[in-house]
Amino acid sequence: MIGNETSIKFAGKFIIVGFGCVGQGLLPVLLRHFDILPTQIKIITADESGRAEADHYQVPFSVCPLTFSNYREILGSALNQGDFLLNLAINVSSTALMELCHERHVLYLDACIEPWAGGYTDTSLSPSDRSNYALREEMLALRQKLGKGATAIPSHGANPGLVSHWVKQALLNLAKDIGLDSEIPQTREAWAQLAYKLNISVIQCAERDTQISDPPKQLDEFINTWSVDGFAGEGSQPAELGWGSHEKYFPIDGKHHNFGGDAAIYLERPGVSTRVRAWTPREGAYQGFLITHGESISIADYLTIKEQDRLCYRPTVYYAYHPCDGAVLSVHEFSGKNLTLQTTQRLLMDDIVDGIDELGVSLMGHSRNVYWYGSVLSIEEARKLAPYNNATSLQVVAGVLSGIVWAIENPDAGIIEPDEMPFERVLEVATPYLGKVVGEYGDWTPIMDRGVLFEEDMDSTDPWQFKNFRVT
Amino acid sequence: MIGNETSIKFAGKFIIVGFGCVGQGLLPVLLRHFDILPTQIKIITADESGRAEADHYQVPFSVCPLTFSNYREILGSALNQGDFLLNLAINVSSTALMELCHERHVLYLDACIEPWAGGYTDTSLSPSDRSNYALREEMLALRQKLGKGATAIPSHGANPGLVSHWVKQALLNLAKDIGLDSEIPQTREAWAQLAYKLNISVIQCAERDTQISDPPKQLDEFINTWSVDGFAGEGSQPAELGWGSHEKYFPIDGKHHNFGGDAAIYLERPGVSTRVRAWTPREGAYQGFLITHGESISIADYLTIKEQDRLCYRPTVYYAYHPCDGAVLSVHEFSGKNLTLQTTQRLLMDDIVDGIDELGVSLMGHSRNVYWYGSVLSIEEARKLAPYNNATSLQVVAGVLSGIVWAIENPDAGIIEPDEMPFERVLEVATPYLGKVVGEYGDWTPIMDRGVLFEEDMDSTDPWQFKNFRVT
Ligand SMILES: NC(=O)c1ccc[n+]([C@@H]2O[C@H](COP(=O)([O-])OP(=O)(O)OC[C@H]3O[C@@H](n4cnc5c(N)ncnc54)[C@H](O)[C@@H]3O)[C@@H](O)[C@H]2O)c1
Ligand SMILES: NC(=O)c1ccc[n+]([C@@H]2O[C@H](COP(=O)([O-])OP(=O)(O)OC[C@H]3O[C@@H](n4cnc5c(N)ncnc54)[C@H](O)[C@@H]3O)[C@@H](O)[C@H]2O)c1
Repeated sequence: MIGNETSIKFAGKFIIVGFGCVGQGLLPVLLRHFDILPTQIKIITADESGRAEADHYQVPFSVCPLTFSNYREILGSALNQGDFLLNLAINVSSTALMELCHERHVLYLDACIEPWAGGYTDTSLSPSDRSNYALREEMLALRQKLGKGATAIPSHGANPGLVSHWVKQALLNLAKDIGLDSEIPQTREAWAQLAYKLNISVIQCAERDTQISDPPKQLDEFINTWSVDGFAGEGSQPAELGWGSHEKYFPIDGKHHNFGGDAAIYLERPGVSTRVRAWTPREGAYQGFLITHGESISIADYLTIKEQDRLCYRPTVYYAYHPCDGAVLSVHEFSGKNLTLQTTQRLLMDDIVDGIDELGVSLMGHSRNVYWYGSVLSIEEARKLAPYNNATSLQVVAGVLSGIVWAIENPDAGIIEPDEMPFERVLEVATPYLGKVVGEYGDWTPIMDRGVLFEEDMDSTDPWQFKNFRVT
Repeated sequence: MIGNETSIKFAGKFIIVGFGCVGQGLLPVLLRHFDILPTQIKIITADESGRAEADHYQVPFSVCPLTFSNYREILGSALNQGDFLLNLAINVSSTALMELCHERHVLYLDACIEPWAGGYTDTSLSPSDRSNYALREEMLALRQKLGKGATAIPSHGANPGLVSHWVKQALLNLAKDIGLDSEIPQTREAWAQLAYKLNISVIQCAERDTQISDPPKQLDEFINTWSVDGFAGEGSQPAELGWGSHEKYFPIDGKHHNFGGDAAIYLERPGVSTRVRAWTPREGAYQGFLITHGESISIADYLTIKEQDRLCYRPTVYYAYHPCDGAVLSVHEFSGKNLTLQTTQRLLMDDIVDGIDELGVSLMGHSRNVYWYGSVLSIEEARKLAPYNNATSLQVVAGVLSGIVWAIENPDAGIIEPDEMPFERVLEVATPYLGKVVGEYGDWTPIMDRGVLFEEDMDSTDPWQFKNFRVT
């Protein structure tokens, strides 16, 4: 068990909406760190999953799926000033809940900006309107409309979430190692300047999950170390990436959104069918899926330098996800059936027999080539640190916990993205749950060992061009 | 055990070069069907694998890797008129051994036209010269040079091998079901006419191997249900396909070979990174790898109709391989490391816990849409039918056995491709080892359920265009 237990006072209620992989992983950790009674917590979810755990901790549990039509009625009676609403559900609109929390002076956090059910695959919407870019713009517009108020943090899990803070820590580590004299930046502009000075062309969120299960994936089954629905949903959204100022080749299937800040583009294809080359210290070179994620957009936006309307600097930012082997096979089958979800789904938990989740940010293009900074957490360590978790869920829980703590300590920040929060306090809370937190350099580039047997269309004058990463 | 044991007389020797997956699977079956002494067999191989089995059957076993420089010396003393040389090795040139056998009046069979070691990935050769097309042209040139002689059958396993015979059986079944009056064709031209009359646009060799192992694939390990080296080798060759006369869109990375009969083209990329949509009756829709195979070229060539030099008809023919799940993951890792082979390799045999190999030919474009014809063999059935086998190896062994029997019964056919042999006798010998041999119709097309979430570049006026199958 974790050594640094603290007893944080909290007089309000925690309303937890959604109690799947992340919710179930969070509950014991929440009870450990907060000086609260189980009856100060209330779980509202859509199925029976997790009921035994809730009963074990004597936490009230009710099955009551929220919809656009009922959420105000159902949550209304539960939310009072000073409470905390945790949206750990899929299919429950983040902006709807944020607006309600604003009205009630209730703190809010989620781990992903979610639309209402079906939003990721609503064919009446254009791919652009089904993107995370659009969901973020909706959130930013809401913030504009609401102004200051109770703190509400969208997307504060591991990724999105901790990765935004790791980018800052990694920039500082890199500056130090390179010998660049740098204070800790205090503004968005200063962070962007630091990234620019270090010559960061690309930031990948590079994850290799090696957890394996017994039994393995069955036919017509989708298995994963976190939400299957969540992964299938975001994997069916267009592939999205923050689009860097150094990029010379606009992707043939690339599209700009015709609204919002334009920090990111999308590809006219789902993330599950988009592969990119990537590298983590333990795995080495691998191919990952370019799955859309909020951080790809928010980090790129945060690190943008403009003069008036002219773009001066922005890194390319995207997720290069190598999920657990069973999920790679699940995606393969899912793609083979043209994104019709398998009949059976399984969240891997007690059936995991081995493996680690190696999750970090990979900063590329600087004078030391590649710097990966993040968490290496094994299933064994995760089980020692907290019950009801695997390595993946615990990394997310660490992000959620640290966001909750920060929100309670800073209750009047209004809607605030992970990138805008101070990183030190967040990482202080999260790190004990992250196994080994390491920074490592690599000499890998996406054009290394390429073009040997077949000619390949590469730009060898600049390895960090997106077209060099993309698997075609 | 199989019911229809026969005792085929054979006075000569069986020299088996290479004793891996296929060789080890064949030995008990060979001893069952032939009235021979163990000492009439001689195994020459490159490693210790299979020694215990050889000892068990009291068959002489020697480790002595053949090379370009030593093969005549080593085999010379072993080969006498009336013997049978089985080339079940990787890395041992088929044409070299064929020429030697021709000189010595020795029967010959292999399961793949092999080059000497390194031939598949020799970077001093162009992709065209590293292709199966080039290996086949070399074999055809040798046939031209040698003329008639002892029977020598290249590529007579399951695929290549049995699939050529299944195509004929499938064409006849289809003609009957459609009500097309047809005699059994007696010439190449007549078979091509039948395929043309039935309007066969595409023939896929469509295979879904569902065998799973315990333990599963480990990190930095390539696992497969047959030769890992063999699969990695052919998977690193260019993707090759017989190129049909109905095709309207030449692939952007497609190339004609500038020599030979031109029945096939290649893509400027390895098969392991080339995916195509396919269908088998049990799996339904899936994505397979377009791995180059001899039959893609020979079947396309066999079914070609020309008037003078003008191409009138040819089906598109290629392999759509969904190897076992562990091999899908192995290919994923192998591709991620730019085709650097994993440190560890494992042939799955006793560690297989469940699964089937569903292997057949899929005839498409006719009035009944898709007709799949082939073998459905489970690991349990395979184990009942013969020791030292899994479902995949036994399908190959069935092809090898039936080819051997045919060669012995027809010892003066010279070099002859599977397509040129009469199919009935071959299938009669092979079928008892193939589990359920079934023909099934499907309403699947490669454009079914496509273009729902994203626009896709498809030709909906003709579903059977290669560009509709290809995953990009
Ligand atoms: N940022 C990160 O690092 C990260 C990582 C993993 C998951 N997530 C996000 O966290 C959220 C939860 O993920 P998970 O893995 O726990 O998912 P899960 O599928 O395991 O659980 C989802 C939960 O939502 C509930 N739910 C579904 N519809 C609901 C409705 N209409 N009303 C109330 N509850 C409903 C389900 O009953 C279930 O309890 C998702 O948004 C996911 O994208 C973020
Ligand atoms: N047509 C089909 O359906 C089909 C299916 C599977 C395999 N095959 C082919 O059959 C052959 C054998 O496949 P496998 O799965 O048994 O392969 P394997 O890798 O299991 O065994 C290969 C054998 O070749 C031997 N070998 C390697 N180099 C040699 C050398 N220089 N001299 C002598 N022996 C050497 C090895 O020691 C080993 O015994 C390959 O050509 C493969 O492509 C064909």
